[in-house]
Amino acid sequence: MQHETIKLTDNSLELLDQRKLPTEVTYYRATDYREVKFAISEMVVRGAPAIGATGAYGVYLAASEYSFKPKDEFISSVKKAGQEIASARPTAVNLGWAIRRMNKILDENKEKQISDIVSLIRQGAESIAEEDVKTNRKMAAHGNNIVPQKANILTHCNTGALATVDYGTALGVIREAHNSGKSVNVYVDETRPRLQGARLTAFELVEENIPATLIVDSVAATLIRDRVVDLILVGADRIAANGDTANKIGTYNLSVLASNHEVPFYVVAPTSTIDMEVETGDEIEIEERSPDEVVKINGSRIAPNEVSVYNPSFDISPAENITGIVTEKGIARSPFTETLEQMVVQN
Amino acid sequence: MQHETIKLTDNSLELLDQRKLPTEVTYYRATDYREVKFAISEMVVRGAPAIGATGAYGVYLAASEYSFKPKDEFISSVKKAGQEIASARPTAVNLGWAIRRMNKILDENKEKQISDIVSLIRQGAESIAEEDVKTNRKMAAHGNNIVPQKANILTHCNTGALATVDYGTALGVIREAHNSGKSVNVYVDETRPRLQGARLTAFELVEENIPATLIVDSVAATLIRDRVVDLILVGADRIAANGDTANKIGTYNLSVLASNHEVPFYVVAPTSTIDMEVETGDEIEIEERSPDEVVKINGSRIAPNEVSVYNPSFDISPAENITGIVTEKGIARSPFTETLEQMVVQN
Repeated sequence: MQHETIKLTDNSLELLDQRKLPTEVTYYRATDYREVKFAISEMVVRGAPAIGATGAYGVYLAASEYSFKPKDEFISSVKKAGQEIASARPTAVNLGWAIRRMNKILDENKEKQISDIVSLIRQGAESIAEEDVKTNRKMAAHGNNIVPQKANILTHCNTGALATVDYGTALGVIREAHNSGKSVNVYVDETRPRLQGARLTAFELVEENIPATLIVDSVAATLIRDRVVDLILVGADRIAANGDTANKIGTYNLSVLASNHEVPFYVVAPTSTIDMEVETGDEIEIEERSPDEVVKINGSRIAPNEVSVYNPSFDISPAENITGIVTEKGIARSPFTETLEQMVVQN
Repeated sequence: MQHETIKLTDNSLELLDQRKLPTEVTYYRATDYREVKFAISEMVVRGAPAIGATGAYGVYLAASEYSFKPKDEFISSVKKAGQEIASARPTAVNLGWAIRRMNKILDENKEKQISDIVSLIRQGAESIAEEDVKTNRKMAAHGNNIVPQKANILTHCNTGALATVDYGTALGVIREAHNSGKSVNVYVDETRPRLQGARLTAFELVEENIPATLIVDSVAATLIRDRVVDLILVGADRIAANGDTANKIGTYNLSVLASNHEVPFYVVAPTSTIDMEVETGDEIEIEERSPDEVVKINGSRIAPNEVSVYNPSFDISPAENITGIVTEKGIARSPFTETLEQMVVQN
């Protein structure tokens, strides 16, 4: 993309402020791990892979901040900072996964000098970011195999360069299909309440000149029924061992429609999103967010003050509604348990 | 409700301006039929029964305006005005139905003096409004029979006093259940793009102290899957002879979820909504509205300028997904064809 989602500069982390897109392109500067945590919880940056890399950089900022401390205190303070960052959002597994990778670096190098450990932490965070881009390119190549030469593709939320370090997961597949000369038209559902489809996916597609049509979420059902949509591609925040997938609220709905009308429904996510600790989707914690996300849009009120609001941020699509899961290692197909396990073991 | 939706005063029609609710309670004054047409097409007033009554009053305003003309010209001008009003919104059958009733009055009384015809037109419009309230009360009584003593009810769009002359269709049933002492909790989906759920249904329920929880449209799927929802009640803009029902975009989606998870799904609508001229839903024209409804909320832009938008205002729920159709004459159940025909013939 023309704009970097995440960039580390002079000991601060610059994050493309996704709360303000598409009308304003500005960067939020996080100068310490507390601001990184804020940026993740307020969704300055969002998307499972992007918050993983951001969290890792946050641990690096904490390591810099605490580098003057005695070694034991340094290590425990950095780990505590990591734990705090990880608590910013509970559903996406990538955040915890990235923090665990940083902790492993701390544990394996605790005999070294603090300045060296800080360097290794920085390199570790940079590796996560670099790997993410490589992983996305591989997923895109695998995923492109399931995209017909001419395709109307429905996608949900934002799974593009803005949800990752670059290129994207589900939107990476769409980008790849377009770049490989296929005739791709994208139906973008707006994805209430945070409007990641309207604000972010539409922004990326317009920037790249990929034909796109914006719809409100409830229009998807008719497009699926009428087979206007050939293929549905979504991302994931956490995939259970059996293939059940937690993703942005609204995904379950699409999975039911897809299954009913026999439209292929694929999840595109790196193997770091697979959580083998979790057997089925029932065990995945669903984050509930502020009512303000529903009752206010751009600061303007759209519902009476007194009404209650229920605002879960994710839902679970059951494995049986999922045609396949595209990872950087290939495409897993139902039943998923064995393939997913093999993919994760290789890591 | 505390505020009248439609009121005729001194030869002008006052319409509660639904574009401005819930933050502002003001009336739009239509002084001639052109302003009535504007109010219907811009959705100052909306809801199939409400626009029927409004259209009839519009014909009365035209009749007053043209009363100085020679008889032949008077009749043709009033009919032309009616035709124009009817063209304001194509999907709801009630508008055309109300205009046809006005035309019948014109045809049957063309030998009378113009001033008498104008009076009869006024009485005809007032009858439509009065009948609507009576019809809603009857539907509510029938509908209450299907509401359990304790029920979580999901509803879509606005089908309340604001969508009718008073009381409401689907929301009328909910009102009746609440008033009869049942423990009712209402899940209100916001109903993008025009947010009739968030703006209007939530407003009515808060005003009447009926417990309500607002959700974005895509949350409904999970609530239905988890059987948090006991019953789904929606309105209708046009019902085909076989029971296929055109209603606000998003209704089809809910009907699929309901059918999949075996949650009762009822349409509540007066028999004037049944269009025996139309055999199945495939023949119903679906209005497509301005992209601005999707990309701007309260005047504030939420998507890039350059993106295309597809904005159908209605969709078709197939008869097989509908548990029953509640009318003022009772509850029709599948297969609908015979019962609906009998109900209409009695009219």
